Parts: sequence; C-alpha cells; structure tokens
Amino acid sequence: MSDHDQAPPAEDAARTEHPQEEAPAPQGPSALEAEELEDRWRRALADLDNLRKRYARDRPRELEAERARATAAWLPVVDNLELALAHADADPETIVRGVQAVRDQALDVLRSLGYPRHDETGVPFDPVLHEVVSVVEDPDAAPGTVVQVLRPGYGDPDRQLRPAAVAVSRKQE
Amino acid sequence: MSDHDQAPPAEDAARTEHPQEEAPAPQGPSALEAEELEDRWRRALADLDNLRKRYARDRPRELEAERARATAAWLPVVDNLELALAHADADPETIVRGVQAVRDQALDVLRSLGYPRHDETGVPFDPVLHEVVSVVEDPDAAPGTVVQVLRPGYGDPDRQLRPAAVAVSRKQE
Repeated sequence: MSDHDQAPPAEDAARTEHPQEEAPAPQGPSALEAEELEDRWRRALADLDNLRKRYARDRPRELEAERARATAAWLPVVDNLELALAHADADPETIVRGVQAVRDQALDVLRSLGYPRHDETGVPFDPVLHEVVSVVEDPDAAPGTVVQVLRPGYGDPDRQLRPAAVAVSRKQE
Repeated sequence: MSDHDQAPPAEDAARTEHPQEEAPAPQGPSALEAEELEDRWRRALADLDNLRKRYARDRPRELEAERARATAAWLPVVDNLELALAHADADPETIVRGVQAVRDQALDVLRSLGYPRHDETGVPFDPVLHEVVSVVEDPDAAPGTVVQVLRPGYGDPDRQLRPAAVAVSRKQE
C-alpha cells in the first residue's frame, strides 16, 4: 500500500521541469483542480506500473520457493533410502523392514504436502477420486463398487494429485 | 491489460447518478478537462484495485499448482518403492537391486526439479556448497579439501536445497 512513496514516473519528472512559478498566468479553480487531478491520475498510473513490475519480479521467486519447500520434504526419504541400501549386506528381513519404513515416510510426506493416500475398497465409485481400469463381475459387491485398487490415489476431491486406478463391479443393466 | 474493460468501481457508479445533462451550467474547457481527468484517475484507481484483487486471488492457486507439480514428480518413486516391497519374497539381491533403481529414480527427480546431487570429494571447500561437520588430518590432501561427504547436497550454488555435509582437511597454520 506504500506505492505512493516510490519514485515518480518519467512523465512526472518531465512535467516538473516546467514549474508553476514560470507560468504565473491567472488560473481559475478549475485549472488548479485539473492540475491536481492530472497529478493524481499519473500517480495512479505509476502505482499500477510498479505493481505489475513487482508481481512480475516476485512471482518466479515465490514459485521457486514453493518448489524448494515441497522438494526439501523428500530429502529425508532419499536419505533413508540410501541408509537402507548402505545396510544391503544385512539379512533380507532387515532390508525389507527398512524399505517399508521409507515407504511409510514417503506417504507421510505426501500427506504433509496436502495429498493423503486413497486406496479404499468397498466404497462407491466416484469419478473424481477413481479412474476405472477394469470392470469385473462380483456377485458379493453392490454394482459400481470399488472392488480392487490397482494403484493408489493421492489428494482430496478438491485437490487431486492423482485419482486411484481401480476395478469396479459391473452395474446392473 | 484489459482492466479497463472491467466493471466500473462504486465511485464511478455513484457519479453517473448525476449525469451531465441534468447540470447544463456553462463549463469552460478547464472544467471539462477536469472531469475527463477525474474519470481517468478513478479508472486507474479501479484498475489498481482490480489488479491487487486478481493477484491475491491467483497467488494461492499458482503456489498450489507448483506444489502439486513438484509432488507429482515423486509419485513414480513411491510406486516403484511399493513394487519393490511387493516382491519382498524375492531373493535379497533382487530386492536390493530394486531399491537401488528407486534411489536412482529419486535422484533423477531431484535433478529434474532443478536440484542436482553434489557429493564430490577432492574439491576445495566452498562455504556455499558445503557444511563442515568435521576437520581431519589428511597428509595426502591439500589443506581445506573436501575429503569425505557424510550427507550429499542438492542444488546449484544459486539455488541450494541443502549443502553437502562434509569432512575437510585441516588448513595449515
């Protein structure tokens, strides 16, 4: 809101080269008002220009910062993946447990970034949350029910990162 | 640039309630000019207001889109991590190879997001790229050389996600 404090635009600078003192011709209230209004108008234009420039300058920085923030959240996952591999000479059970912990950590990261995992079965098919990859006969399931999740989905209905790839039971004809 | 096409602000709307036709008092060129200038001024203010509102509205959306883009890049890594775990009953060598492939994929993702890995040894210590966690005696290394990387760094000097945690050779007194 402090745009008025910024340097005046080039037009203003040019105009002040002809100060009022050099033109002492009689001026009515209207002329004075016009001068004041022109000043305000030019100042508003300068503010508009400054605002556009400021946003154009700040936008890439803000996007970069957001990308860095989201990416930095994954570094512990990568670190632990490497830690699990550093113990690759341990018994297989230890390796698998280590990698499972990394997987859980990755899901925590996704949740913390705003994209919780969705892999529920037995729920009604929802075109926002699910992508149907196969339709199956399933006498035990109500028609149009998610009976298998082939690839989990991430995100909420209003902020979807990826829908779950699912198999649904055939609808009744 | 089409801000002028938008609806006039409240002030303009109020002013048009007193159209010029109802006030046919004689007006000099200055008064007309003043009216035109006031109109321009108010329009510039309205543009300024609209621009502020537009950016305030767009900014969260753009940041959200950037976060989603950066996060979506990690989904294949998570998928493959789960695939490696799904074959947890395979021989240990297969598991390790699978997890190594996931690790390589994670490093590719970091690189594609603009944060390449840095774990070079034998390079001079650089306070921008390195964080010293220990200083060691190393007769084979020139003083102030990175002799060990304890945790890799990610990013470029001008876009650092995390500096590498390193051990450096002691400087000569």
